[in-house]
Amino acid sequence: MDNRPIGVFDSGIGGLTVLKEIIEQLPGEDIVYLGDTARIPYGTRSKETVIKYVLESFEFLMSKNIKAIVIACNTASSLALKEARERFDIPILGVVEPGAKAAVGSTKNNTIGVIGTEGTINSGSYDKTIRELLPTAEIIGIPCPLFVPIVEEGWENTDVAYITAQKYLLELKEHNIDTLVLGCTHYPVLRYTIGKVLGDKVTLVNPAYETAKLTKNTLKELNLLNEKLDEGIYKYFVSDDPEKFKRIGGNLIRKQIGTVEKVELDI
Amino acid sequence: MDNRPIGVFDSGIGGLTVLKEIIEQLPGEDIVYLGDTARIPYGTRSKETVIKYVLESFEFLMSKNIKAIVIACNTASSLALKEARERFDIPILGVVEPGAKAAVGSTKNNTIGVIGTEGTINSGSYDKTIRELLPTAEIIGIPCPLFVPIVEEGWENTDVAYITAQKYLLELKEHNIDTLVLGCTHYPVLRYTIGKVLGDKVTLVNPAYETAKLTKNTLKELNLLNEKLDEGIYKYFVSDDPEKFKRIGGNLIRKQIGTVEKVELDI
Repeated sequence: MDNRPIGVFDSGIGGLTVLKEIIEQLPGEDIVYLGDTARIPYGTRSKETVIKYVLESFEFLMSKNIKAIVIACNTASSLALKEARERFDIPILGVVEPGAKAAVGSTKNNTIGVIGTEGTINSGSYDKTIRELLPTAEIIGIPCPLFVPIVEEGWENTDVAYITAQKYLLELKEHNIDTLVLGCTHYPVLRYTIGKVLGDKVTLVNPAYETAKLTKNTLKELNLLNEKLDEGIYKYFVSDDPEKFKRIGGNLIRKQIGTVEKVELDI
Repeated sequence: MDNRPIGVFDSGIGGLTVLKEIIEQLPGEDIVYLGDTARIPYGTRSKETVIKYVLESFEFLMSKNIKAIVIACNTASSLALKEARERFDIPILGVVEPGAKAAVGSTKNNTIGVIGTEGTINSGSYDKTIRELLPTAEIIGIPCPLFVPIVEEGWENTDVAYITAQKYLLELKEHNIDTLVLGCTHYPVLRYTIGKVLGDKVTLVNPAYETAKLTKNTLKELNLLNEKLDEGIYKYFVSDDPEKFKRIGGNLIRKQIGTVEKVELDI
Protein backbone atom coordinates (compact mmCIF):
# COMPACT_ATOMS: atom_id res chain seq x y z
CA MET A 1 0.00 0.00 0.00
CA ASP A 2 1.39 3.35 -1.11
CA ASN A 3 -0.67 6.50 -0.64
CA ARG A 4 1.41 8.81 -2.84
CA PRO A 5 -0.49 10.18 -5.85
CA ILE A 6 -0.22 9.05 -9.48
CA GLY A 7 0.99 11.69 -11.96
CA VAL A 8 -0.95 12.01 -15.23
CA PHE A 9 0.76 14.06 -17.90
CA ASP A 10 -0.62 15.44 -21.16
CA SER A 11 0.33 18.20 -23.57
CA GLY A 12 -3.12 19.67 -22.92
CA ILE A 13 -6.66 18.83 -21.97
CA GLY A 14 -7.22 15.55 -23.77
CA GLY A 15 -5.44 13.54 -21.10
CA LEU A 16 -8.51 14.04 -18.92
CA THR A 17 -10.09 11.10 -20.75
CA VAL A 18 -7.21 8.98 -19.41
CA LEU A 19 -7.63 10.47 -15.95
CA LYS A 20 -11.32 9.58 -16.10
CA GLU A 21 -10.56 5.94 -16.87
CA ILE A 22 -7.98 5.80 -14.06
CA ILE A 23 -10.56 7.23 -11.64
CA GLU A 24 -13.06 4.56 -12.71
CA GLN A 25 -10.61 1.70 -12.36
CA LEU A 26 -8.66 3.02 -9.36
CA PRO A 27 -11.17 5.10 -7.40
CA GLY A 28 -9.06 5.35 -4.23
CA GLU A 29 -5.95 6.78 -5.89
CA ASP A 30 -4.98 10.44 -5.55
CA ILE A 31 -3.95 12.03 -8.87
CA VAL A 32 -1.85 15.02 -9.89
CA TYR A 33 -2.72 16.04 -13.46
CA LEU A 34 -0.35 18.23 -15.45
CA GLY A 35 -1.34 19.70 -18.85
CA ASP A 36 1.39 21.60 -20.69
CA THR A 37 -1.26 23.76 -22.36
CA ALA A 38 1.12 26.64 -23.14
CA ARG A 39 3.19 24.44 -25.45
CA ILE A 40 0.48 22.37 -27.11
CA PRO A 41 0.49 20.84 -29.71
CA TYR A 42 3.48 18.55 -29.24
CA GLY A 43 2.60 16.75 -32.47
CA THR A 44 4.34 19.26 -34.73
CA ARG A 45 7.56 19.57 -32.72
CA SER A 46 10.94 17.89 -33.10
CA LYS A 47 11.81 14.84 -31.01
CA GLU A 48 14.43 16.78 -29.01
CA THR A 49 11.93 19.51 -28.17
CA VAL A 50 9.31 17.01 -27.03
CA ILE A 51 11.86 15.22 -24.84
CA LYS A 52 12.90 18.55 -23.30
CA TYR A 53 9.27 19.51 -22.56
CA VAL A 54 8.47 16.08 -21.12
CA LEU A 55 11.51 16.05 -18.82
CA GLU A 56 10.70 19.58 -17.61
CA SER A 57 7.11 18.56 -16.97
CA PHE A 58 8.18 15.42 -15.12
CA GLU A 59 10.51 17.41 -12.87
CA PHE A 60 7.43 19.34 -11.80
CA LEU A 61 5.42 16.16 -11.24
CA MET A 62 8.26 14.62 -9.22
CA SER A 63 8.16 17.62 -6.90
CA LYS A 64 4.62 16.46 -5.98
CA ASN A 65 5.95 13.19 -4.53
CA ILE A 66 4.24 10.89 -7.03
CA LYS A 67 4.69 7.12 -7.23
CA ALA A 68 4.13 6.61 -10.99
CA ILE A 69 3.49 8.62 -14.16
CA VAL A 70 0.99 7.95 -16.92
CA ILE A 71 1.75 9.78 -20.17
CA ALA A 72 -1.66 10.41 -21.74
CA CYS A 73 -0.25 12.28 -24.74
CA ASN A 74 0.31 10.11 -27.83
CA THR A 75 3.20 12.23 -29.12
CA ALA A 76 5.01 12.28 -25.78
CA SER A 77 4.44 8.54 -25.37
CA SER A 78 5.95 7.95 -28.81
CA LEU A 79 8.98 10.22 -28.53
CA ALA A 80 10.01 10.54 -24.91
CA LEU A 81 9.10 7.36 -23.03
CA LYS A 82 12.61 5.87 -23.18
CA GLU A 83 14.35 9.07 -22.01
CA ALA A 84 11.84 9.60 -19.22
CA ARG A 85 12.33 6.04 -17.97
CA GLU A 86 16.10 6.53 -17.98
CA ARG A 87 15.86 9.75 -16.00
CA PHE A 88 13.24 8.94 -13.38
CA ASP A 89 13.18 5.93 -11.13
CA ILE A 90 9.42 5.30 -10.88
CA PRO A 91 7.09 3.35 -13.19
CA ILE A 92 6.23 5.36 -16.33
CA LEU A 93 3.45 4.21 -18.67
CA GLY A 94 2.54 5.52 -22.12
CA VAL A 95 -0.72 5.14 -24.09
CA VAL A 96 0.70 3.76 -27.34
CA GLU A 97 1.86 0.35 -26.08
CA PRO A 98 -1.42 -0.63 -24.37
CA GLY A 99 -3.43 0.71 -27.33
CA ALA A 100 -1.36 -1.23 -29.85
CA LYS A 101 -1.53 -4.40 -27.77
CA ALA A 102 -5.32 -4.24 -27.49
CA ALA A 103 -5.63 -3.68 -31.26
CA VAL A 104 -3.51 -6.76 -31.96
CA GLY A 105 -5.59 -8.78 -29.47
CA SER A 106 -8.81 -7.71 -31.19
CA THR A 107 -8.13 -8.03 -34.92
CA LYS A 108 -9.16 -11.18 -36.76
CA ASN A 109 -8.39 -10.13 -40.33
CA ASN A 110 -5.09 -8.35 -39.50
CA THR A 111 -6.47 -5.07 -40.85
CA ILE A 112 -6.29 -2.26 -38.32
CA GLY A 113 -7.21 1.40 -38.67
CA VAL A 114 -5.56 4.13 -36.61
CA ILE A 115 -6.97 7.65 -36.33
CA GLY A 116 -5.25 10.54 -34.58
CA THR A 117 -3.79 14.00 -35.03
CA GLU A 118 -1.56 14.66 -38.00
CA GLY A 119 1.46 14.48 -35.68
CA THR A 120 0.56 11.04 -34.31
CA ILE A 121 -0.30 9.57 -37.70
CA ASN A 122 2.80 10.96 -39.43
CA SER A 123 5.04 9.71 -36.61
CA GLY A 124 3.96 6.15 -37.42
CA SER A 125 4.28 5.19 -33.76
CA TYR A 126 1.18 3.02 -33.62
CA ASP A 127 2.17 1.30 -36.88
CA LYS A 128 5.60 0.50 -35.50
CA THR A 129 4.34 -0.79 -32.16
CA ILE A 130 1.55 -2.85 -33.76
CA ARG A 131 3.98 -4.39 -36.28
CA GLU A 132 6.37 -5.41 -33.51
CA LEU A 133 3.56 -7.53 -32.11
CA LEU A 134 1.96 -8.57 -35.40
CA PRO A 135 4.39 -8.22 -38.33
CA THR A 136 1.77 -9.11 -40.97
CA ALA A 137 -0.70 -6.42 -39.88
CA GLU A 138 -2.10 -4.10 -42.55
CA ILE A 139 -2.43 -0.68 -40.91
CA ILE A 140 -4.31 2.30 -42.34
CA GLY A 141 -3.68 5.61 -40.58
CA ILE A 142 -5.96 8.62 -41.09
CA PRO A 143 -5.43 12.05 -39.50
CA CYS A 144 -8.74 13.66 -38.45
CA PRO A 145 -8.01 17.33 -37.61
CA LEU A 146 -11.69 18.32 -37.17
CA PHE A 147 -12.37 15.82 -34.41
CA VAL A 148 -10.61 17.75 -31.63
CA PRO A 149 -12.53 21.03 -32.16
CA ILE A 150 -15.80 19.08 -32.59
CA VAL A 151 -15.26 17.47 -29.19
CA GLU A 152 -14.20 20.75 -27.60
CA GLU A 153 -17.43 22.36 -28.91
CA GLY A 154 -19.45 19.56 -27.29
CA TRP A 155 -20.76 18.60 -30.76
CA GLU A 156 -19.87 14.91 -30.57
CA ASN A 157 -23.43 13.74 -31.23
CA THR A 158 -24.44 16.25 -33.92
CA ASP A 159 -24.87 16.01 -37.69
CA VAL A 160 -21.57 17.89 -38.10
CA ALA A 161 -19.77 15.13 -36.18
CA TYR A 162 -21.56 12.42 -38.17
CA ILE A 163 -20.88 13.85 -41.63
CA THR A 164 -17.27 14.65 -40.70
CA ALA A 165 -16.77 11.11 -39.42
CA GLN A 166 -18.26 9.74 -42.66
CA LYS A 167 -15.76 11.77 -44.68
CA TYR A 168 -12.74 10.73 -42.63
CA LEU A 169 -13.64 7.07 -42.14
CA LEU A 170 -14.74 6.20 -45.67
CA GLU A 171 -11.26 4.95 -46.58
CA LEU A 172 -11.14 2.75 -43.48
CA LYS A 173 -14.46 1.14 -44.48
CA GLU A 174 -13.15 0.50 -47.97
CA HIS A 175 -10.11 -1.26 -46.49
CA ASN A 176 -12.45 -3.48 -44.49
CA ILE A 177 -10.75 -2.89 -41.14
CA ASP A 178 -12.12 -4.88 -38.20
CA THR A 179 -10.38 -2.83 -35.48
CA LEU A 180 -9.90 0.91 -35.04
CA VAL A 181 -7.51 2.55 -32.58
CA LEU A 182 -8.82 5.89 -31.27
CA GLY A 183 -5.29 7.28 -31.26
CA CYS A 184 -5.97 10.73 -29.83
CA THR A 185 -7.08 11.42 -26.29
CA HIS A 186 -10.14 13.42 -27.44
CA TYR A 187 -11.54 10.73 -29.72
CA PRO A 188 -13.17 8.37 -27.20
CA VAL A 189 -15.77 11.12 -26.72
CA LEU A 190 -16.76 10.49 -30.37
CA ARG A 191 -16.99 6.72 -30.04
CA TYR A 192 -20.78 6.51 -30.51
CA THR A 193 -20.67 8.62 -33.67
CA ILE A 194 -17.66 6.71 -35.00
CA GLY A 195 -19.39 3.43 -34.15
CA LYS A 196 -22.52 4.51 -36.03
CA VAL A 197 -20.44 5.25 -39.14
CA LEU A 198 -18.34 2.08 -39.02
CA GLY A 199 -20.99 -0.36 -37.79
CA ASP A 200 -20.91 -3.20 -35.25
CA LYS A 201 -18.27 -5.28 -36.98
CA VAL A 202 -15.46 -2.85 -36.20
CA THR A 203 -14.05 -2.98 -32.66
CA LEU A 204 -13.05 0.41 -31.29
CA VAL A 205 -9.91 0.34 -29.16
CA ASN A 206 -9.71 3.07 -26.52
CA PRO A 207 -6.07 3.45 -25.43
CA ALA A 208 -7.20 5.50 -22.39
CA TYR A 209 -9.12 2.51 -21.05
CA GLU A 210 -6.29 0.07 -21.83
CA THR A 211 -3.74 2.34 -20.19
CA ALA A 212 -5.78 2.65 -17.00
CA LYS A 213 -6.04 -1.16 -16.88
CA LEU A 214 -2.28 -1.50 -17.31
CA THR A 215 -1.69 1.14 -14.64
CA LYS A 216 -3.81 -0.83 -12.19
CA ASN A 217 -1.97 -4.09 -12.94
CA THR A 218 1.44 -2.44 -12.75
CA LEU A 219 0.76 -0.80 -9.39
CA LYS A 220 -0.66 -4.06 -8.07
CA GLU A 221 2.40 -6.05 -9.12
CA LEU A 222 4.75 -3.53 -7.55
CA ASN A 223 2.67 -3.32 -4.39
CA LEU A 224 2.03 0.38 -4.94
CA LEU A 225 -1.79 0.46 -4.85
CA ASN A 226 -3.60 2.89 -2.58
CA GLU A 227 -6.47 0.80 -1.28
CA LYS A 228 -8.24 3.40 0.80
CA LEU A 229 -12.02 3.46 0.42
CA ASP A 230 -12.46 7.23 0.21
CA GLU A 231 -12.56 8.84 -3.20
CA GLY A 232 -9.17 10.07 -4.41
CA ILE A 233 -8.07 13.70 -4.36
CA TYR A 234 -7.46 15.26 -7.78
CA LYS A 235 -5.16 18.21 -8.34
CA TYR A 236 -4.82 19.96 -11.69
CA PHE A 237 -1.91 22.01 -13.00
CA VAL A 238 -1.59 23.68 -16.42
CA SER A 239 1.01 25.93 -18.03
CA ASP A 240 -1.64 28.23 -19.63
CA ASP A 241 -5.16 29.63 -18.92
CA PRO A 242 -6.70 27.59 -16.04
CA GLU A 243 -10.26 28.85 -16.70
CA LYS A 244 -10.33 27.53 -20.22
CA PHE A 245 -9.00 24.20 -19.00
CA LYS A 246 -11.80 23.97 -16.45
CA ARG A 247 -14.51 24.84 -18.93
CA ILE A 248 -13.50 22.61 -21.85
CA GLY A 249 -12.21 19.91 -19.52
CA GLY A 250 -15.57 19.77 -17.77
CA ASN A 251 -17.29 19.23 -21.15
CA LEU A 252 -14.77 16.60 -22.13
CA ILE A 253 -15.27 14.27 -19.20
CA ARG A 254 -18.76 15.44 -18.10
CA LYS A 255 -17.39 16.05 -14.63
CA GLN A 256 -16.71 19.15 -12.62
CA ILE A 257 -12.99 20.04 -12.58
CA GLY A 258 -11.81 21.32 -9.18
CA THR A 259 -9.16 23.96 -8.63
CA VAL A 260 -6.70 24.37 -11.50
CA GLU A 261 -3.38 26.03 -10.82
CA LYS A 262 -1.08 27.65 -13.35
CA VAL A 263 2.60 26.71 -13.30
CA GLU A 264 5.72 27.71 -15.23
CA LEU A 265 7.46 24.72 -16.77
CA ASP A 266 10.12 26.31 -19.00
CA ILE A 267 12.32 27.88 -16.35
CA MET B 1 10.90 55.97 -51.59
CA ASP B 2 12.09 53.16 -49.34
CA ASN B 3 13.04 49.81 -50.79
CA ARG B 4 13.21 47.85 -47.54
CA PRO B 5 10.67 45.01 -47.33
CA ILE B 6 7.38 44.96 -45.40
CA GLY B 7 7.12 42.32 -42.68
CA VAL B 8 3.90 40.33 -42.57
CA PHE B 9 3.42 38.32 -39.40
CA ASP B 10 0.93 35.60 -38.62
CA SER B 11 0.66 32.77 -36.12
CA GLY B 12 0.50 30.43 -39.07
CA ILE B 13 -0.66 30.15 -42.60
CA GLY B 14 -3.82 32.28 -42.56
CA GLY B 15 -1.88 35.53 -42.92
CA LEU B 16 -1.29 34.57 -46.51
CA THR B 17 -4.75 35.96 -47.26
CA VAL B 18 -3.44 39.34 -46.03
CA LEU B 19 -0.20 38.94 -47.98
CA LYS B 20 -2.26 38.26 -51.10
CA GLU B 21 -4.22 41.49 -50.66
CA ILE B 22 -1.00 43.46 -50.05
CA ILE B 23 0.53 42.03 -53.22
CA GLU B 24 -2.55 43.08 -55.19
CA GLN B 25 -2.57 46.61 -53.83
CA LEU B 26 1.21 47.13 -53.53
CA PRO B 27 2.71 45.02 -56.31
CA GLY B 28 6.19 46.59 -56.15
CA GLU B 29 6.81 45.95 -52.44
CA ASP B 30 9.16 43.23 -51.22
CA ILE B 31 7.68 41.18 -48.38
CA VAL B 32 9.11 39.03 -45.62
CA TYR B 33 6.40 36.71 -44.32
CA LEU B 34 6.80 35.02 -40.95
CA GLY B 35 4.40 32.31 -39.77
CA ASP B 36 4.91 31.04 -36.24
CA THR B 37 3.55 27.65 -37.26
CA ALA B 38 5.26 25.76 -34.43
CA ARG B 39 3.20 27.62 -31.85
CA ILE B 40 -0.12 27.91 -33.62
CA PRO B 41 -2.90 28.33 -32.59
CA TYR B 42 -2.55 31.66 -30.81
CA GLY B 43 -6.34 31.88 -30.48
CA THR B 44 -6.49 29.52 -27.53
CA ARG B 45 -3.55 30.95 -25.58
CA SER B 46 -3.36 33.44 -22.76
CA LYS B 47 -2.59 37.11 -23.39
CA GLU B 48 0.85 36.90 -21.77
CA THR B 49 1.84 33.93 -23.90
CA VAL B 50 0.69 35.66 -27.11
CA ILE B 51 2.67 38.82 -26.26
CA LYS B 52 5.79 36.76 -25.60
CA TYR B 53 5.45 34.93 -28.94
CA VAL B 54 4.77 38.14 -30.88
CA LEU B 55 7.78 39.97 -29.46
CA GLU B 56 10.05 36.99 -30.19
CA SER B 57 8.70 36.84 -33.75
CA PHE B 58 9.19 40.58 -34.30
CA GLU B 59 12.82 40.35 -33.16
CA PHE B 60 13.30 37.95 -36.05
CA LEU B 61 11.51 40.21 -38.55
CA MET B 62 13.56 43.22 -37.42
CA SER B 63 16.72 41.28 -38.27
CA LYS B 64 15.50 41.32 -41.90
CA ASN B 65 15.70 45.13 -42.11
CA ILE B 66 11.99 45.73 -42.61
CA LYS B 67 10.32 49.16 -42.75
CA ALA B 68 6.90 48.23 -41.34
CA ILE B 69 5.03 45.24 -39.92
CA VAL B 70 1.52 44.08 -40.72
CA ILE B 71 0.09 41.74 -38.07
CA ALA B 72 -2.22 39.50 -40.06
CA CYS B 73 -3.24 37.43 -37.04
CA ASN B 74 -6.39 38.70 -35.33
CA THR B 75 -5.42 37.27 -31.96
CA ALA B 76 -1.99 38.88 -32.09
CA SER B 77 -3.52 42.17 -33.31
CA SER B 78 -5.97 42.07 -30.43
CA LEU B 79 -3.61 41.10 -27.65
CA ALA B 80 -0.14 42.35 -28.55
CA LEU B 81 -0.38 45.46 -30.78
CA LYS B 82 0.20 47.92 -27.95
CA GLU B 83 3.22 46.06 -26.56
CA ALA B 84 4.72 45.64 -30.02
CA ARG B 85 4.35 49.35 -30.80
CA GLU B 86 6.03 50.22 -27.51
CA ARG B 87 8.96 47.93 -28.23
CA PHE B 88 9.67 48.58 -31.93
CA ASP B 89 10.11 51.92 -33.63
CA ILE B 90 8.54 51.27 -37.06
CA PRO B 91 4.90 51.46 -38.20
CA ILE B 92 2.96 48.41 -36.99
CA LEU B 93 -0.53 47.75 -38.36
CA GLY B 94 -3.04 45.25 -37.10
CA VAL B 95 -6.09 43.85 -38.87
CA VAL B 96 -8.63 44.78 -36.19
CA GLU B 97 -8.70 48.57 -36.64
CA PRO B 98 -9.25 48.55 -40.43
CA GLY B 99 -11.81 45.74 -40.14
CA ALA B 100 -13.77 47.60 -37.46
CA LYS B 101 -13.71 50.82 -39.45
CA ALA B 102 -15.08 49.13 -42.56
CA ALA B 103 -17.86 47.48 -40.55
CA VAL B 104 -18.93 50.84 -39.12
CA GLY B 105 -18.89 52.31 -42.62
CA SER B 106 -21.11 49.50 -43.90
CA THR B 107 -23.82 49.04 -41.26
CA LYS B 108 -27.19 50.76 -41.65
CA ASN B 109 -29.05 49.23 -38.71
CA ASN B 110 -26.11 49.42 -36.26
CA THR B 111 -26.18 45.64 -35.81
CA ILE B 112 -22.85 44.02 -36.58
CA GLY B 113 -21.74 40.42 -36.27
CA VAL B 114 -18.14 39.41 -35.66
CA ILE B 115 -16.84 35.87 -36.13
CA GLY B 116 -13.34 34.68 -35.23
CA THR B 117 -11.35 32.32 -33.05
CA GLU B 118 -12.20 32.01 -29.39
CA GLY B 119 -9.22 34.21 -28.52
CA THR B 120 -10.33 37.03 -30.82
CA ILE B 121 -13.97 36.94 -29.72
CA ASN B 122 -13.24 36.65 -26.00
CA SER B 123 -10.74 39.49 -26.20
CA GLY B 124 -13.63 41.75 -27.26
CA SER B 125 -11.19 43.72 -29.39
CA TYR B 126 -13.51 44.17 -32.37
CA ASP B 127 -16.37 45.18 -30.05
CA LYS B 128 -14.20 47.76 -28.36
CA THR B 129 -12.80 49.18 -31.59
CA ILE B 130 -16.22 49.29 -33.27
CA ARG B 131 -17.81 51.00 -30.25
CA GLU B 132 -15.11 53.67 -30.21
CA LEU B 133 -16.30 54.60 -33.70
CA LEU B 134 -20.02 53.90 -33.22
CA PRO B 135 -21.00 53.87 -29.55
CA THR B 136 -24.59 52.74 -30.25
CA ALA B 137 -23.56 49.66 -32.20
CA GLU B 138 -25.06 46.33 -31.21
CA ILE B 139 -22.35 43.73 -31.69
CA ILE B 140 -22.79 39.97 -31.63
CA GLY B 141 -19.56 37.98 -31.48
CA ILE B 142 -19.47 34.26 -32.23
CA PRO B 143 -16.34 32.07 -32.02
CA CYS B 144 -16.19 29.49 -34.82
CA PRO B 145 -13.37 27.06 -33.93
CA LEU B 146 -14.21 24.55 -36.68
CA PHE B 147 -13.77 27.01 -39.54
CA VAL B 148 -9.95 26.94 -39.52
CA PRO B 149 -9.57 23.16 -39.81
CA ILE B 150 -12.36 23.10 -42.42
CA VAL B 151 -10.41 25.58 -44.57
CA GLU B 152 -7.14 23.74 -44.02
CA GLU B 153 -8.75 20.49 -45.15
CA GLY B 154 -9.90 22.27 -48.32
CA TRP B 155 -13.53 21.57 -47.30
CA GLU B 156 -14.79 25.15 -47.67
CA ASN B 157 -17.48 24.25 -50.18
CA THR B 158 -18.70 20.96 -48.66
CA ASP B 159 -21.76 19.97 -46.66
CA VAL B 160 -19.62 19.92 -43.49
CA ALA B 161 -18.78 23.60 -44.06
CA TYR B 162 -22.40 24.49 -44.81
CA ILE B 163 -23.95 22.71 -41.80
CA THR B 164 -21.22 24.05 -39.50
CA ALA B 165 -21.83 27.58 -40.78
CA GLN B 166 -25.58 27.17 -40.22
CA LYS B 167 -24.94 26.14 -36.61
CA TYR B 168 -22.56 28.99 -35.89
CA LEU B 169 -24.44 31.74 -37.74
CA LEU B 170 -28.00 31.00 -36.61
CA GLU B 171 -27.75 33.46 -33.72
CA LEU B 172 -26.47 36.20 -36.04
CA LYS B 173 -29.48 35.74 -38.31
CA GLU B 174 -31.84 35.96 -35.36
CA HIS B 175 -30.23 39.27 -34.36
CA ASN B 176 -30.82 40.59 -37.87
CA ILE B 177 -27.25 41.79 -38.45
CA ASP B 178 -26.60 43.66 -41.70
CA THR B 179 -22.79 43.44 -41.55
CA LEU B 180 -20.45 40.60 -40.63
CA VAL B 181 -16.73 40.96 -39.92
CA LEU B 182 -14.74 37.88 -41.03
CA GLY B 183 -12.46 38.26 -38.01
CA CYS B 184 -10.02 35.42 -38.72
CA THR B 185 -7.57 35.25 -41.59
CA HIS B 186 -8.87 31.89 -42.80
CA TYR B 187 -12.50 32.94 -43.00
CA PRO B 188 -12.48 34.86 -46.31
CA VAL B 189 -11.96 31.44 -47.94
CA LEU B 190 -15.41 30.51 -46.56
CA ARG B 191 -17.14 33.67 -47.78
CA TYR B 192 -19.31 31.93 -50.38
CA THR B 193 -20.57 29.36 -47.88
CA ILE B 194 -21.11 32.04 -45.23
CA GLY B 195 -22.88 34.23 -47.80
CA LYS B 196 -25.17 31.34 -48.74
CA VAL B 197 -26.18 30.88 -45.11
CA LEU B 198 -26.69 34.60 -44.34
CA GLY B 199 -28.14 35.77 -47.66
CA ASP B 200 -27.55 38.89 -49.78
CA LYS B 201 -28.64 41.44 -47.21
CA VAL B 202 -25.60 40.92 -45.01
CA THR B 203 -22.37 42.66 -46.08
CA LEU B 204 -19.25 40.61 -45.40
CA VAL B 205 -16.25 42.69 -44.28
CA ASN B 206 -12.82 41.24 -45.10
CA PRO B 207 -10.22 42.80 -42.77
CA ALA B 208 -7.39 41.47 -44.98
CA TYR B 209 -8.51 43.69 -47.83
CA GLU B 210 -9.05 46.71 -45.54
CA THR B 211 -5.64 46.23 -43.92
CA ALA B 212 -3.82 46.15 -47.25
CA LYS B 213 -5.56 49.40 -48.18
CA LEU B 214 -4.49 51.02 -44.89
CA THR B 215 -0.92 49.74 -45.33
CA LYS B 216 -0.74 51.44 -48.70
CA ASN B 217 -2.06 54.74 -47.32
CA THR B 218 0.23 54.62 -44.29
CA LEU B 219 3.40 53.97 -46.31
CA LYS B 220 2.41 56.72 -48.73
CA GLU B 221 1.89 59.26 -45.95
CA LEU B 222 5.22 58.40 -44.35
CA ASN B 223 7.00 58.42 -47.70
CA LEU B 224 7.97 54.79 -47.33
CA LEU B 225 6.53 53.35 -50.55
CA ASN B 226 8.70 51.27 -52.84
CA GLU B 227 7.61 52.46 -56.25
CA LYS B 228 9.70 50.17 -58.40
CA LEU B 229 7.85 48.64 -61.34
CA ASP B 230 9.17 45.09 -61.00
CA GLU B 231 7.15 42.60 -59.05
CA GLY B 232 8.15 42.38 -55.38
CA ILE B 233 10.32 39.63 -53.91
CA TYR B 234 8.55 37.42 -51.38
CA LYS B 235 10.42 35.50 -48.68
CA TYR B 236 8.70 33.04 -46.38
CA PHE B 237 9.84 31.92 -42.95
CA VAL B 238 8.07 29.50 -40.63
CA SER B 239 8.91 28.00 -37.25
CA ASP B 240 7.70 24.52 -38.27
CA ASP B 241 7.44 22.19 -41.29
CA PRO B 242 8.03 24.31 -44.45
CA GLU B 243 6.54 21.66 -46.75
CA LYS B 244 3.20 21.67 -44.96
CA PHE B 245 3.15 25.47 -45.14
CA LYS B 246 3.78 25.37 -48.89
CA ARG B 247 1.09 22.79 -49.49
CA ILE B 248 -1.73 24.26 -47.39
CA GLY B 249 -0.65 27.85 -48.14
CA GLY B 250 -0.76 27.22 -51.88
CA ASN B 251 -4.34 25.97 -51.51
CA LEU B 252 -5.30 28.92 -49.35
CA ILE B 253 -4.32 31.68 -51.77
CA ARG B 254 -4.42 29.66 -54.99
CA LYS B 255 -0.85 30.77 -55.71
CA GLN B 256 2.47 28.96 -55.80
CA ILE B 257 4.51 29.63 -52.64
CA GLY B 258 8.27 30.03 -53.31
CA THR B 259 11.09 28.90 -51.01
CA VAL B 260 10.07 28.56 -47.37
CA GLU B 261 12.78 28.55 -44.70
CA LYS B 262 12.50 27.17 -41.19
CA VAL B 263 13.61 29.35 -38.27
CA GLU B 264 13.81 28.96 -34.48
CA LEU B 265 11.89 31.68 -32.64
CA ASP B 266 11.89 30.51 -29.02
CA ILE B 267 15.59 30.69 -28.22
